[in-house]
Amino acid sequence: MTAPRATLDAVNALDRAGFVALLGEVFENAPWVAETAAAQRPFASVAALHDAMTTAVRAAPIEERLAFLRGHPDLAGEVARAGAVTAASAAEQGSLGLDRLSEEELARFERLNAAYRERFGIPFIICVRRHTRDSILASFERRLASTAEEEIAAALEEIGYITRLRLVARIEGPGMPRTNGHLSTHVLDTVRGQPAAGVAVSLYGIGQSARELLVSTVTNADGRTDAPLIAGTPLRIGWYELHFAIGDYFARMGIAAAEPRFIDVVPIRFAIAEPEGRYHVPLLASPWSYTTYRGS
Amino acid sequence: MTAPRATLDAVNALDRAGFVALLGEVFENAPWVAETAAAQRPFASVAALHDAMTTAVRAAPIEERLAFLRGHPDLAGEVARAGAVTAASAAEQGSLGLDRLSEEELARFERLNAAYRERFGIPFIICVRRHTRDSILASFERRLASTAEEEIAAALEEIGYITRLRLVARIEGPGMPRTNGHLSTHVLDTVRGQPAAGVAVSLYGIGQSARELLVSTVTNADGRTDAPLIAGTPLRIGWYELHFAIGDYFARMGIAAAEPRFIDVVPIRFAIAEPEGRYHVPLLASPWSYTTYRGS
Amino acid sequence: MTAPRATLDAVNALDRAGFVALLGEVFENAPWVAETAAAQRPFASVAALHDAMTTAVRAAPIEERLAFLRGHPDLAGEVARAGAVTAASAAEQGSLGLDRLSEEELARFERLNAAYRERFGIPFIICVRRHTRDSILASFERRLASTAEEEIAAALEEIGYITRLRLVARIEGPGMPRTNGHLSTHVLDTVRGQPAAGVAVSLYGIGQSARELLVSTVTNADGRTDAPLIAGTPLRIGWYELHFAIGDYFARMGIAAAEPRFIDVVPIRFAIAEPEGRYHVPLLASPWSYTTYRGS
Amino acid sequence: MTAPRATLDAVNALDRAGFVALLGEVFENAPWVAETAAAQRPFASVAALHDAMTTAVRAAPIEERLAFLRGHPDLAGEVARAGAVTAASAAEQGSLGLDRLSEEELARFERLNAAYRERFGIPFIICVRRHTRDSILASFERRLASTAEEEIAAALEEIGYITRLRLVARIEGPGMPRTNGHLSTHVLDTVRGQPAAGVAVSLYGIGQSARELLVSTVTNADGRTDAPLIAGTPLRIGWYELHFAIGDYFARMGIAAAEPRFIDVVPIRFAIAEPEGRYHVPLLASPWSYTTYRGS
Repeated sequence: MTAPRATLDAVNALDRAGFVALLGEVFENAPWVAETAAAQRPFASVAALHDAMTTAVRAAPIEERLAFLRGHPDLAGEVARAGAVTAASAAEQGSLGLDRLSEEELARFERLNAAYRERFGIPFIICVRRHTRDSILASFERRLASTAEEEIAAALEEIGYITRLRLVARIEGPGMPRTNGHLSTHVLDTVRGQPAAGVAVSLYGIGQSARELLVSTVTNADGRTDAPLIAGTPLRIGWYELHFAIGDYFARMGIAAAEPRFIDVVPIRFAIAEPEGRYHVPLLASPWSYTTYRGS
Repeated sequence: MTAPRATLDAVNALDRAGFVALLGEVFENAPWVAETAAAQRPFASVAALHDAMTTAVRAAPIEERLAFLRGHPDLAGEVARAGAVTAASAAEQGSLGLDRLSEEELARFERLNAAYRERFGIPFIICVRRHTRDSILASFERRLASTAEEEIAAALEEIGYITRLRLVARIEGPGMPRTNGHLSTHVLDTVRGQPAAGVAVSLYGIGQSARELLVSTVTNADGRTDAPLIAGTPLRIGWYELHFAIGDYFARMGIAAAEPRFIDVVPIRFAIAEPEGRYHVPLLASPWSYTTYRGS
Repeated sequence: MTAPRATLDAVNALDRAGFVALLGEVFENAPWVAETAAAQRPFASVAALHDAMTTAVRAAPIEERLAFLRGHPDLAGEVARAGAVTAASAAEQGSLGLDRLSEEELARFERLNAAYRERFGIPFIICVRRHTRDSILASFERRLASTAEEEIAAALEEIGYITRLRLVARIEGPGMPRTNGHLSTHVLDTVRGQPAAGVAVSLYGIGQSARELLVSTVTNADGRTDAPLIAGTPLRIGWYELHFAIGDYFARMGIAAAEPRFIDVVPIRFAIAEPEGRYHVPLLASPWSYTTYRGS
Repeated sequence: MTAPRATLDAVNALDRAGFVALLGEVFENAPWVAETAAAQRPFASVAALHDAMTTAVRAAPIEERLAFLRGHPDLAGEVARAGAVTAASAAEQGSLGLDRLSEEELARFERLNAAYRERFGIPFIICVRRHTRDSILASFERRLASTAEEEIAAALEEIGYITRLRLVARIEGPGMPRTNGHLSTHVLDTVRGQPAAGVAVSLYGIGQSARELLVSTVTNADGRTDAPLIAGTPLRIGWYELHFAIGDYFARMGIAAAEPRFIDVVPIRFAIAEPEGRYHVPLLASPWSYTTYRGS
């Protein structure tokens, strides 16, 4: 979403058609949601606008709500691949590579989609940008065991996440709803009692079948990275590893170690459970000992 | 080496031929070493016997010493594969799978062997039981850069390790030379201030190209493993990972965590540099923090 | 209690008078307890003998049990100071200095004793050897709020602790009841990955009004103290501080620090709650960081 | 120094007399230093102004420099007590209570002053605001062993610290020299993986003979204190203790512990060596374990 964002003031001042033109796609294939919200302007905050749109869905008769849910594409489904979805939906699914699955993976998703549709009469809806492939598959399997009522609630909750992200991509202004997480680190040298500068840090996403290098950076003079490891986007639920090349650091500091070094590259494996959370994962290290923790 | 070991007293009482029959193979293709040592009996300790044999080699004229070194087989070499080496040598090389290398690996060893022989006029000698394939290859490359004098000294030092192990496999008695290392762990639950019992622990050997599961065990009521992770043998120089299933443990204790758990399986990567050393690698853990160190 | 202990076998073989002569004082002013137990010999373990004696008390009619409880001296009371108690009782009270209280302290104990007697009709009974003065006063105040039934049970439980200690001072044999605690420490140098040897360690008892040096020692080559800090006796419930002179240690190792040192003497303040427990309180330290925990 | 500070621009624009009126007292009894610097205006930064004044002193002939040093009052001396020093000097000495010493302490200072003057011909000069009484006495004793040349250099270095503080109390503007330190803390709850909020924190100054409560505060929702423990002033070189009431915190969180608690109030003893330094002293704690370190 590279178009400049409209200010909330400007959005409050649009005519009804302009408002729907801008926000009609936020709720998938349901411009009536924007139409309903348009009448309640002005909004004092972006969060209030989102609440109004969500309330419009929740207030709709059950048949209309189900029709709305049925208007969503299957995950990694043929409709999505054939292009008959909103641009936002296509971009979201593409972000995880769901549009480039192998035949085998595609078959797995299609089996799950079919089972889910058969059981609940609606497509499986999930906010892809808050997930890894593994966590989507885990959710899929867990949610297949729910009741229909629970799944309608779950689908609406996921739509809340999806539309919140779509909204903040289109509008800026006071009272932005929280949509972004934050992952950072910090390396302390406990031999010298100082931040460890110049430590190579790599962040990997750890899938069931593969690991992917997400970030490769180096600590600065304060032992932190110049930019957060992840920010400005939801953190994807799933497993990660941070690798710290602390052995090379201590060698540069002239601090003696064994050969090979007892500790060289420290892997810290952790999971992210809250996509909008603040995760700080520091390392306190000597050549022979280290401590990590979820900090703040 | 499953034959029962002779006592030092019995060895001191053997006739010369019996002594050489028992110990003639300890120094590869050099029964004269045992013959020389035989005359100095009785020995008060196994270490003293080993010293006497080593001294016999070091006291020999340089040409004899070189002939002795040249009597050793190539690592992973054709002679070894064709069976023309001592049983001890075959068992040692087999312990690392050097008798079952792929064509490519074999070619790499043969190139290194040839380069080493050409440069120093002797085969590359290393105590295989103290090494992993990676550390042998690293030694090979490092030692190719030495001088001939350094390499004769290095070869004799390695022969010291090799023959010490062969000797303690044949004799038991007072003053055994130190040939074994020790690797152990301990898991503390810092939430409850108690040993963490029932934690699944796996030890992996980490090679350049592959990882190998070495031990799979579970902590006991004291948070330790019933048997050391490795004992009764030299520790192989190289990289290892301990994996602790601490997330499952805290779940069994009913201690709340996120879903997925921030910390689930903790990997601790470390290197062993001293094959005869004592390595204690404990874990102090909560669901959100852990500390490890080289203990004692 | 410096007399040699009788073996359980010898005790089983004594005649009835000899048995009562040996064990009649174990239960304060109640030789009938030993008489009852005498008939049940032989005992297979010291714990079984103690159980038999305890059962004799619990089986006695309530009036007899109350008389037994009333036969105990007041804590720090005039009877005790005047010598009209068993030698064991005098030694136990003396171990805490209860026979050498200031006038003010004595007045406090007498007020508590009087209040307790008035409320429950029995003296306040507590196993002094498991307590510090502070924990006795805290127990006194807490127990004054109990019901009479709870206090009879509490008194019998304390008598169990008292008589167990008296019994193991007189008899040795299989199945000794657990009466001793254990306090130990261990210092690891995380800069060098080795035990910290030669670290001065002091253990203080921390009372409300004063601190008392209990042990002053130095770590050995394994980073431990040659003897446990406390062993062979119950640990007194209360507050303690361990002081580790880690700054001097790192200075001896030639490891740079600021002047004055950021960390010099590390105080670790902890409480003992289980007199028969095993407390291991290690220190992992660099000149700029340390970790402590209840180990095992 | 509660008068409003002049801006550097205003100071650059003053006439010579006004400049000397404002800054003549910065160098004790040496208005000529300000006079010399006045000619070099304008200054681009406050640090540049300080450098110019310092350079004026260093460039003066040795006799003038010595006269300047001799113009300083004795520490805790009669001149100071009688009021014949600059207001700044009186305030500085008063900050440590050097104007309210006991007869015994005064006698000690006078002995040291006399010994120092006799040895070096100048008064002992030290920037009091960077010190505790203990660190002044330690410096006194250490510096008595120096050579005269070393002491002239040391005195000028201390005057640099003193005058930097006096200057920044009078002027504000770009390029302020660093004169302030910073002491902060942070408490992490490793049982819940969150900042520990509501933990009572006390900071004590630890002297040879007494301890003084400096700060008493409580952690906020982020586990930090709303204000730094010390900021806006140099940190005094010396010993400190932070006390964290972590036992009460875990009790409020409903996390089980022994009675009495193994860990209740955690004392962390540390020294400050750099008055202009940034000291961050965090605590990672469970009811059974904790870690502290010099952070950043």
